[in-house]
Amino acid sequence: MRYRINISYDGAGYSGWQIQPKHPTVQEELEKALETLTGSRPRVHSSGRTDRGVHARAQSAHFDLEQPVFTDKLRAGLNALLDDDIRVMSLKAVKADFHARYDVTRKEYRYFIWNDRIVPPFVRRYRTAVVEPLDVEAMRAAARKLEGRHDFAAFSANPNREVDGTVRELYELTVRKTGREIVIIAAGNGFLYKMVRSLAGFLIRVGKGELTPEQTREILDSRIRTATVPTAPPDGLFLWKVRY
Amino acid sequence: MRYRINISYDGAGYSGWQIQPKHPTVQEELEKALETLTGSRPRVHSSGRTDRGVHARAQSAHFDLEQPVFTDKLRAGLNALLDDDIRVMSLKAVKADFHARYDVTRKEYRYFIWNDRIVPPFVRRYRTAVVEPLDVEAMRAAARKLEGRHDFAAFSANPNREVDGTVRELYELTVRKTGREIVIIAAGNGFLYKMVRSLAGFLIRVGKGELTPEQTREILDSRIRTATVPTAPPDGLFLWKVRY
Repeated sequence: MRYRINISYDGAGYSGWQIQPKHPTVQEELEKALETLTGSRPRVHSSGRTDRGVHARAQSAHFDLEQPVFTDKLRAGLNALLDDDIRVMSLKAVKADFHARYDVTRKEYRYFIWNDRIVPPFVRRYRTAVVEPLDVEAMRAAARKLEGRHDFAAFSANPNREVDGTVRELYELTVRKTGREIVIIAAGNGFLYKMVRSLAGFLIRVGKGELTPEQTREILDSRIRTATVPTAPPDGLFLWKVRY
Repeated sequence: MRYRINISYDGAGYSGWQIQPKHPTVQEELEKALETLTGSRPRVHSSGRTDRGVHARAQSAHFDLEQPVFTDKLRAGLNALLDDDIRVMSLKAVKADFHARYDVTRKEYRYFIWNDRIVPPFVRRYRTAVVEPLDVEAMRAAARKLEGRHDFAAFSANPNREVDGTVRELYELTVRKTGREIVIIAAGNGFLYKMVRSLAGFLIRVGKGELTPEQTREILDSRIRTATVPTAPPDGLFLWKVRY
């Protein structure tokens, strides 16, 4: 029996999604809790890794169990065992051929910036602080040039190690502003290693006036990652929605 | 020279506002930082104490310095010294007779409830979770009966130790609902010890159907604090605004 879960997590206390020795990860916490509840330890496959410190509003994953379970009971049991920073928001049986990673048709990330000198305590955990006033119109002009199908090698933290090449399609890259909060919305069919944080790092530099929107095409076409494109910190990044 | 500050703080890591031995408090952190920056240690007077674990979106306080200072510099210096969970949002010189506590004309608190089985990690620090579905209309009916000038002894955690008596005027007690979030707004000329959390505890019981709005008058008129009115947890409570 295959089950799909939707998970929210605060990434601050975890070394990302994927299991690794000596560091707590979201995948490991879920697998350990499933083992406690079911007696066997299934592998939990997510829609993709999230890096150390990155949050998920709605990560999606699947796993197989030999025996069918009451889904409401398993969900409640998992939430009782897991730390409050990881919540199973929903759990349901799916077809045996559903795959949380390969069946993704659209993934959406949101990058939250607090654009002010002073960051209130209640937003600091989930926002990246930028003190210099950002020019949102310039950020939007640059973002528009990145939408569509491109070779995003210049926006991967490690383009030479991308197994599936460096071409991806960005369905949406938009910038919203509400008061002191600026949100970058990035949706696409897939993302390269640290690509959203690289896009955010680039757009923040454009917003500061350190780069112009007109340089976007040139950077994209170079297909080389340089220090011109910094990787923005993980604090403000959320995996927002996964669609199949 | 007298200065007024507006402060935001996350109360989770502090034993409330007021200085006490062996426990970190917001007042002590501010006084220590002022001492480091100015060489003398002024007493910082707030609009009123907040209890252990209670948050402040906008606490107001004043203190005196012998020498005039550059307000922007002092504010930046305080924020550089203080933990990120306490932020000085503004600092300005005020008249020598301004008093952060005695001059208050209106104080507003907001109590945030997350009314769902599952609490997302990103809201749990600043919301009180209530699993049972709450009847907001019943809560509103009860709240309306508490607005105005009353003896609130039944809603003080310690009515016998209230120095200024137990009569207060509630300018506003309203209940708002947005999705799974319910907010209780309580504004008045002053509040008794743990009064807002007692009002919230009472309204939550009404919302659950354990008490009816019709019992409100009877409880208020009893002027005796009993277990009928529980003190709701501090997590969801914010000192929201202080007016002079």
